[in-house]
Amino acid sequence: MRQALTELQTRDLQHVWHPCSQMKDYEQFPPIVIKKGQGVWLYDENNQRYLDAVSSWWVNLFGHANPRISQALSEQAFTLEHAIFANFTHEPAIQVAEKLVALTPEGLNKVFFADNGSAAIEVALKMSFQYHMQTGKTSKKRFLALTDAYHGETLGALSVGGVDLYNELYQPLLLDTVRAQGPDCYRCPFHDRPDSCQAQCISFVKDELAMHHAEITAVIIEPLIQAAAGMKMYPPIYLKQLRALCTQYNVHLIADEIAVGFGRTGTMFACEQAAITPDFMCLSKGLTGGYLPLSVVLTSDEVYNAFYDDYGTMKAFLHSHSYTGNTLACRVALEVLTMFEEEQYIDIVQEKGERMYKLAMEAFNHLPYVGEYRQAGLVGAIELVANAVTKVPLPSEERIGYQIYKRALSKGLLIRPLGNVLYFMPPYIITDEEMHFMIETAKDTIVQFFAEREG
Amino acid sequence: MRQALTELQTRDLQHVWHPCSQMKDYEQFPPIVIKKGQGVWLYDENNQRYLDAVSSWWVNLFGHANPRISQALSEQAFTLEHAIFANFTHEPAIQVAEKLVALTPEGLNKVFFADNGSAAIEVALKMSFQYHMQTGKTSKKRFLALTDAYHGETLGALSVGGVDLYNELYQPLLLDTVRAQGPDCYRCPFHDRPDSCQAQCISFVKDELAMHHAEITAVIIEPLIQAAAGMKMYPPIYLKQLRALCTQYNVHLIADEIAVGFGRTGTMFACEQAAITPDFMCLSKGLTGGYLPLSVVLTSDEVYNAFYDDYGTMKAFLHSHSYTGNTLACRVALEVLTMFEEEQYIDIVQEKGERMYKLAMEAFNHLPYVGEYRQAGLVGAIELVANAVTKVPLPSEERIGYQIYKRALSKGLLIRPLGNVLYFMPPYIITDEEMHFMIETAKDTIVQFFAEREG
Repeated sequence: MRQALTELQTRDLQHVWHPCSQMKDYEQFPPIVIKKGQGVWLYDENNQRYLDAVSSWWVNLFGHANPRISQALSEQAFTLEHAIFANFTHEPAIQVAEKLVALTPEGLNKVFFADNGSAAIEVALKMSFQYHMQTGKTSKKRFLALTDAYHGETLGALSVGGVDLYNELYQPLLLDTVRAQGPDCYRCPFHDRPDSCQAQCISFVKDELAMHHAEITAVIIEPLIQAAAGMKMYPPIYLKQLRALCTQYNVHLIADEIAVGFGRTGTMFACEQAAITPDFMCLSKGLTGGYLPLSVVLTSDEVYNAFYDDYGTMKAFLHSHSYTGNTLACRVALEVLTMFEEEQYIDIVQEKGERMYKLAMEAFNHLPYVGEYRQAGLVGAIELVANAVTKVPLPSEERIGYQIYKRALSKGLLIRPLGNVLYFMPPYIITDEEMHFMIETAKDTIVQFFAEREG
Repeated sequence: MRQALTELQTRDLQHVWHPCSQMKDYEQFPPIVIKKGQGVWLYDENNQRYLDAVSSWWVNLFGHANPRISQALSEQAFTLEHAIFANFTHEPAIQVAEKLVALTPEGLNKVFFADNGSAAIEVALKMSFQYHMQTGKTSKKRFLALTDAYHGETLGALSVGGVDLYNELYQPLLLDTVRAQGPDCYRCPFHDRPDSCQAQCISFVKDELAMHHAEITAVIIEPLIQAAAGMKMYPPIYLKQLRALCTQYNVHLIADEIAVGFGRTGTMFACEQAAITPDFMCLSKGLTGGYLPLSVVLTSDEVYNAFYDDYGTMKAFLHSHSYTGNTLACRVALEVLTMFEEEQYIDIVQEKGERMYKLAMEAFNHLPYVGEYRQAGLVGAIELVANAVTKVPLPSEERIGYQIYKRALSKGLLIRPLGNVLYFMPPYIITDEEMHFMIETAKDTIVQFFAEREG
């Protein structure tokens, strides 16, 4: 498998420490040097191309180097690249805020900007905490999160995460979060099916809230898909019941739509499917169509008003990042939101989602090592298991997801595993032909891999 | 003072929650809507211009909408805007990493990318902690930071901050950081002067390290200037002694050069003036010349190697953000670093610094309410006090810095106070004439303000 390194690969390995990587893996599988992007394709230094079926960590919506977005960014760069956002503002930020308020569930009227998903989560956690401090509920100092949750990797965001891979080691640095068992539809503890589900498993959250609500400031959740945990999907009824419980127990609901927002699940935001308004909604990733780091937290007038007072009361929310409200990133987000208005991307996601589901079910559903193919909008996931009947997992030390990932890349397909879950989260502009290539190449790779593994 | 709002101001206030702001202040002083930038100037919707003497929160180096940087960004946008940075790479990131390794103190060979300053701090804290866990020093679970420190506002970064304004309220959510009294040259507890100083006050750190070193993983510091605390400056000898103490007690030194890096203090990095190599160096802000959020953490081969092992040992550093290594931001950073190579900006900062010092000393040093004018490179700070002899502070409830800030804006000068410290941190391309305007306008505003206050 080892190959000669190109000059750029050698230089990369000399100084660059890549994210979410055991760098020793790169000895056998050196980094691929991307030179250009176009549509769903990334091109490397040898002009080999890869279909970006993970939208480069779930950020790209309308294809790489999209001419329309690039043109908007370019014009903005020659006009105003950035200005301090305290006491100053600019039209792209104002328009993005207006459009987000109009698009998100009723009642989310205020928009706070940050730079990335983790920072948005930290903002929501801090705002919720401070809100309660400033409204007399000073016993509320803890957060409630689900098992298998992922909300980012700064220490606050990591504290509400529940994927051991990312946070177990750091426990001594993390907040004492109240943890409730989350939904697990593939291995439902109540042996229910998503179509008949009444979200019995919400009882796990209810029990914790009943016990701890006086000390809990907010419940945080990834609506409809626990993405990093392996694209674990659950039905909207769970969210609906969670919203009711939060209201009943007087705790905030923070919806982390960083991965699922902007059409991914077939509606503009996942919360729409449950017809709920969270107290905070965190958005990032697709907000700039995959171009630039930018995030926002939307919240209610009620929350905003608890911070709105004479300066001397010291109730202000002082959180800031240097590039908060960055003009270039806002201009890109504005273009992305305008494209959603002008072209029917939600319909497109639904149509392409149906097509992907059909193709994927045909390709994967009967394969012996596929425990389940599940899908929501344009997110499809294949859960590989040792036994599809007993649902026994494959041995993690074999790193089967990773092996398949490497083989798929050699065939021009970029899928990235989450353990032994392979998933598709393509840009919305994927064509029929490209989707066909994506599904077929994944299928061939899986089939060949297991054939070789069997011996 | 109240004025009719423009349409854009009204729209802004309806939905945008600004950073580091009591939004009620905006009733009296609505946000200024910036339409374009050019050089040191920001232009509002009425074509009124403001000299950006704070480089938009210390990020801008080469002027707003700099044509060279904008051109590079634009070309990159049409080629490759972003690609996942795990197992993938691109030339701008490689070149940025190479240039940073070459520019920073000897021994910092590895570059980890993140999106903003807070995230860089969190990365350094986590890496230092994990390093010690993986090298058998499992008692090291705390960090040591200085009073009056500022390192960002996500919960980990906030935990090592020491400015009450930002973190007091959040104490229940913060780490139990070991705190040592930091340097305070203006009110030196040893009655010493910077030019004769032997950093006696390092004893405060030494005492804490002597007591707690077995549980401390790293000391974090802002080299030469504690910026958010009011541009508190201290001499390089302090850093030199701190480096020696960290080595002696076997704890890491994290240099937070987010505000002071890239020439601000008259050398490319502040650590150079003490001829030290920290174990981690965090950079952001000026890295993209004020264009885009991007940050890096540089560290040593020794640290890198403690994470480099077979995947199954689970020693990898898994931290990631979606936009880690963002191609657009890296391309901009590459242009900025190339401009440093091609033009003698360090000399320019030193020359302009000398000129600024001369002008500022003439303008401010004799004013009755100026306790001290201090400067390092192109950072100048005026500490306003009630009494220049006793150094008694002005009453904070009068918000005098804020009052002066508002008046200066009406004269076309953007300075932003830190309590009752006013500071200048202009873009490096500021002309003589512009510098003259900056100093004279600040002086006139201060003099008029205190005349009215007296009268």
